[in-house]
Amino acid sequence: MALSREQQDEIDRQRAQVQATRRITVPALEEILFQALPVLDHGFVRVVDYMGDDGAIVQAARVSYGRGTRKVQEDRGLINYLMRHRHTTPFEMCEIKYHVKLPIFVARQWIRHRTANVNEYSARYSILDREFYMPAPEHLAAQSASNRQGRGEVLAGDEARRVLDLLREDSMRAYDHYIEMLNEDDAGAEGEDAAKRDSAKRDPGRQGLARELARMNLSLNFYTQWYWKIDLYNLMHFLGLRADAHAQYEIRAYAEVMLGTLDRWVPHAASAFREYALGGVRLSATGLAVVRRMLAGEPVDQATSGMSAREWRELMAALGRT
Amino acid sequence: MALSREQQDEIDRQRAQVQATRRITVPALEEILFQALPVLDHGFVRVVDYMGDDGAIVQAARVSYGRGTRKVQEDRGLINYLMRHRHTTPFEMCEIKYHVKLPIFVARQWIRHRTANVNEYSARYSILDREFYMPAPEHLAAQSASNRQGRGEVLAGDEARRVLDLLREDSMRAYDHYIEMLNEDDAGAEGEDAAKRDSAKRDPGRQGLARELARMNLSLNFYTQWYWKIDLYNLMHFLGLRADAHAQYEIRAYAEVMLGTLDRWVPHAASAFREYALGGVRLSATGLAVVRRMLAGEPVDQATSGMSAREWRELMAALGRT
Amino acid sequence: MALSREQQDEIDRQRAQVQATRRITVPALEEILFQALPVLDHGFVRVVDYMGDDGAIVQAARVSYGRGTRKVQEDRGLINYLMRHRHTTPFEMCEIKYHVKLPIFVARQWIRHRTANVNEYSARYSILDREFYMPAPEHLAAQSASNRQGRGEVLAGDEARRVLDLLREDSMRAYDHYIEMLNEDDAGAEGEDAAKRDSAKRDPGRQGLARELARMNLSLNFYTQWYWKIDLYNLMHFLGLRADAHAQYEIRAYAEVMLGTLDRWVPHAASAFREYALGGVRLSATGLAVVRRMLAGEPVDQATSGMSAREWRELMAALGRT
Amino acid sequence: MALSREQQDEIDRQRAQVQATRRITVPALEEILFQALPVLDHGFVRVVDYMGDDGAIVQAARVSYGRGTRKVQEDRGLINYLMRHRHTTPFEMCEIKYHVKLPIFVARQWIRHRTANVNEYSARYSILDREFYMPAPEHLAAQSASNRQGRGEVLAGDEARRVLDLLREDSMRAYDHYIEMLNEDDAGAEGEDAAKRDSAKRDPGRQGLARELARMNLSLNFYTQWYWKIDLYNLMHFLGLRADAHAQYEIRAYAEVMLGTLDRWVPHAASAFREYALGGVRLSATGLAVVRRMLAGEPVDQATSGMSAREWRELMAALGRT
Repeated sequence: MALSREQQDEIDRQRAQVQATRRITVPALEEILFQALPVLDHGFVRVVDYMGDDGAIVQAARVSYGRGTRKVQEDRGLINYLMRHRHTTPFEMCEIKYHVKLPIFVARQWIRHRTANVNEYSARYSILDREFYMPAPEHLAAQSASNRQGRGEVLAGDEARRVLDLLREDSMRAYDHYIEMLNEDDAGAEGEDAAKRDSAKRDPGRQGLARELARMNLSLNFYTQWYWKIDLYNLMHFLGLRADAHAQYEIRAYAEVMLGTLDRWVPHAASAFREYALGGVRLSATGLAVVRRMLAGEPVDQATSGMSAREWRELMAALGRT
Repeated sequence: MALSREQQDEIDRQRAQVQATRRITVPALEEILFQALPVLDHGFVRVVDYMGDDGAIVQAARVSYGRGTRKVQEDRGLINYLMRHRHTTPFEMCEIKYHVKLPIFVARQWIRHRTANVNEYSARYSILDREFYMPAPEHLAAQSASNRQGRGEVLAGDEARRVLDLLREDSMRAYDHYIEMLNEDDAGAEGEDAAKRDSAKRDPGRQGLARELARMNLSLNFYTQWYWKIDLYNLMHFLGLRADAHAQYEIRAYAEVMLGTLDRWVPHAASAFREYALGGVRLSATGLAVVRRMLAGEPVDQATSGMSAREWRELMAALGRT
Repeated sequence: MALSREQQDEIDRQRAQVQATRRITVPALEEILFQALPVLDHGFVRVVDYMGDDGAIVQAARVSYGRGTRKVQEDRGLINYLMRHRHTTPFEMCEIKYHVKLPIFVARQWIRHRTANVNEYSARYSILDREFYMPAPEHLAAQSASNRQGRGEVLAGDEARRVLDLLREDSMRAYDHYIEMLNEDDAGAEGEDAAKRDSAKRDPGRQGLARELARMNLSLNFYTQWYWKIDLYNLMHFLGLRADAHAQYEIRAYAEVMLGTLDRWVPHAASAFREYALGGVRLSATGLAVVRRMLAGEPVDQATSGMSAREWRELMAALGRT
Repeated sequence: MALSREQQDEIDRQRAQVQATRRITVPALEEILFQALPVLDHGFVRVVDYMGDDGAIVQAARVSYGRGTRKVQEDRGLINYLMRHRHTTPFEMCEIKYHVKLPIFVARQWIRHRTANVNEYSARYSILDREFYMPAPEHLAAQSASNRQGRGEVLAGDEARRVLDLLREDSMRAYDHYIEMLNEDDAGAEGEDAAKRDSAKRDPGRQGLARELARMNLSLNFYTQWYWKIDLYNLMHFLGLRADAHAQYEIRAYAEVMLGTLDRWVPHAASAFREYALGGVRLSATGLAVVRRMLAGEPVDQATSGMSAREWRELMAALGRT
């Protein structure tokens, strides 16, 4: 992970400050507040702010005046009930804000979730760093033969080497040319310092291409970063899709780290989410009929199930009968 | 305002607790945290949680790692710039949560703002209190003769008395019948205590109408309450419409109290909001042309302005030339 | 259902006009276009416009240039696949617009679905009709003893009569006083005609209360109406919640009529929706484990299931083992 | 613009079909329905469906039963009124669907508008074409010296040649390597035909990298495409920001073509949009005070205006006093 000394200092400085508040706090989440949790080769996820806790879900569901004096056990039961019956609005009453560094192709999948607030680092305005994603050897997968949207075996030997060489060389060259076209000094420092570079032309005989144009020479594995803020319900929806086995590995890697922050933040809601969403399964009308017939002792196979081969296979896998 | 002793105790208890946090805090807002700020005859607004401050807007705009060491003056300049150029996303990075008690007809206008999270007290599940809105004499206005969506003079004398009597008597009777149909003891206590009333039938010989049906006998001036959470950008949009002179007085009363909480929470953003939105004016293409002609010394009247009588009147009012 | 002669004429006039279009059309939906489908005692649902059909879902999923030449069978398979794997965005590419007349308390539940466009008839601006909802005898239910958010047995005899009398009398009186306070002639005509009534004061000696205030004397069973526009994905989400057995009967009555319009509009998507959402069931992680154990021949009861009594009961009901 | 013969045939086929409908139609928009309107070097915008017209805005604002018999003049007046007073919901009652082909860096700006429905061509699933954006010589601009987010003079001579060479060569090479890593035959055919290529390995001795990984070698100037559906209010909001002089040229080129489709679709609303939004100007509280003082004959300069140098310059430019 690439944090410069200055960035780490900024983070440490902010972590060192402690304020008094009347708001609800979550010590387990405060422990990791502002820390950069590494993802992929140069990415990270940082929790930079949050609002609410498990109790805030309960409070909103009851529209109450205070925290009440109920026992943890009752709160937990109510949270399970809300999750089971899709009463989603109380979960919207908690909010979290992340700072994320991620490859552009991951950002493009991520942004499809519209119910969130985003501020992305602007390459119209600033210069991107020389940082791009290179898959680790064990994630350099072939195209799946059976699933057009999936991965097959891991590439090995010469093919793997060649792919990694192409990716690296093309990225390096793209960045070199990006900088050459900009005709400004290489990036590295953040934000305002970039402003001082305005005068520092590499070649005084050239004007330098506009930043908003030069950026288009960079490839989709370059890293960008953003602030991303979302409520708990929509975060769980995002994680339900992106921590799923069908999601592309690279975004799943982010989802899994964020799932860890969920456990710290709202342990009851996180556990209800694992019980009723992540760990469960949805049966179709036909699937439910099949299960009922099987439980009644009737032998059922794909031919008599009324399901397609693919659905039958998925159902049997879910039921652990492969 | 109607806070029961128990409710006020709950609030006081929560206000008395102070926790340590690494998050940004806003002392001026903490001062009034959880307090019920009165609105209308029985309503209130309470800030129950918040996330971020003026600095968080700046931080998001810069996608920075920490709070930096910039001067207040620079932050203020950037916030003004963002507001002026409609760069709205950094303002979405702050979030606030209110607990509001309000008449149902106000709630029906309010809910039209969709980009917010809401949890309303459920009359399907619980019993509403005997609390309904009665306009103060100075707000008992006649229908405007010129504007179908507005108010005219204040009613006086017999007509005012008669209107207030009708409103009060119909509300009282509606509530009495609501309770009679429910066949449960009068409300008053909150939430869980209501559950104990389940067994307490007023007339053991009757079953009692379902709550979800009985509620429909109540009129639109009865009070409901909800938790309402929104980001700063959308809050300003809401206040821009609802603190406006064209808004119905009753919802404006809420908007004005909330504007006061904005000043405490994010003073720079609030001041930019007053400068560029609330206190400004939008000129149409024709209106702009009129102003240019007037500045050039040309005499312009409605006939030569290219504007309708109504638009001309509005423009002259905005320019202070009535 | 209360359509005035003028309203029915307007509808007939619009139904009689036929235009030529290059857009996709759905004859089965055109058949009922603009017709008022009755719901409850005075309400209705009218489809007033639509965009897209089953083929448009397929087209969006493939981002294709035309309709292609694929067989119906392939389209149907793709739609099932999209539904099963929660690929929801292609369903957002179809849009439908309804005109709905509904009691205010139903409107208040309905509006909680935020991802839709709404234009409601304004009682700030116009005068509401003397139309209020009275439950049919078979829907006049008692409060459920076991479920605080549900209905029990139907009320009968004196209690039923008394409830209906109270509801009717309070509604009639509330409306009479509404009109008296307005001091305008009774409503009945629509929109612009109301404007002419401005001068028609019932009692020339009184000013008349502002409409935006007078309306608050009406109770929640009065009818309002709105235009409501939504995309197919969000419509199915709405129907999944509101056509469900847990929804209040009155809103379910609307959802069921709308489900019928769905069958006409997008028969493949509607059938996939019934198969994978409405008719299916979600198993929790523990519920799935129970089913696996049962299928393996292990006897399981609530005590050994790891589930609460209520969840166990719900699971057994879903599996048809009660 | 790059439409293959097959694509143009598909479009022509669909344009040739005419159906009968009871829905409102807009002949001026039907004229160009499905046609690819060229933007930039390989992009296009196609209107593929629409719902509603100017009359539908009026109908929604009045919540009426039919089209009524009002004159065009009245409808136009009401639409102007709604636009002027920010009554935005009736404009949400019209919907339009576009098929757009655009460079990825433009898509990344575009997608920030969240209130729309999107289906993008998936490079996880399919193979992208060899099409990338190359700026025309007159749009090859230098970085602005005064505005970090803007363009300065156009590059010329050797510098321009060098930039174009770099962009072209890097794009070509990136695509060659993309195809080599995929180890599948070059793209060109659409959708399902791609499936047949699965077996067609260029080099049978290699597995080929997964599509979801290989795509990350492509740069941000490559073209993607999507279906994009939006309501009229949000479309105008999008156009207000993206047809603005501050928007990057490349996205503005799309916005301008779409503005043309707006004129065809809803001429009254489009004209109100130009009058009250695009062609107007927003004055701040201080700016309004300055105008009032100037109109009163008082000489005002920046020093006495209370405005910053930049704001003063912007105000004077808006007032035509430079």
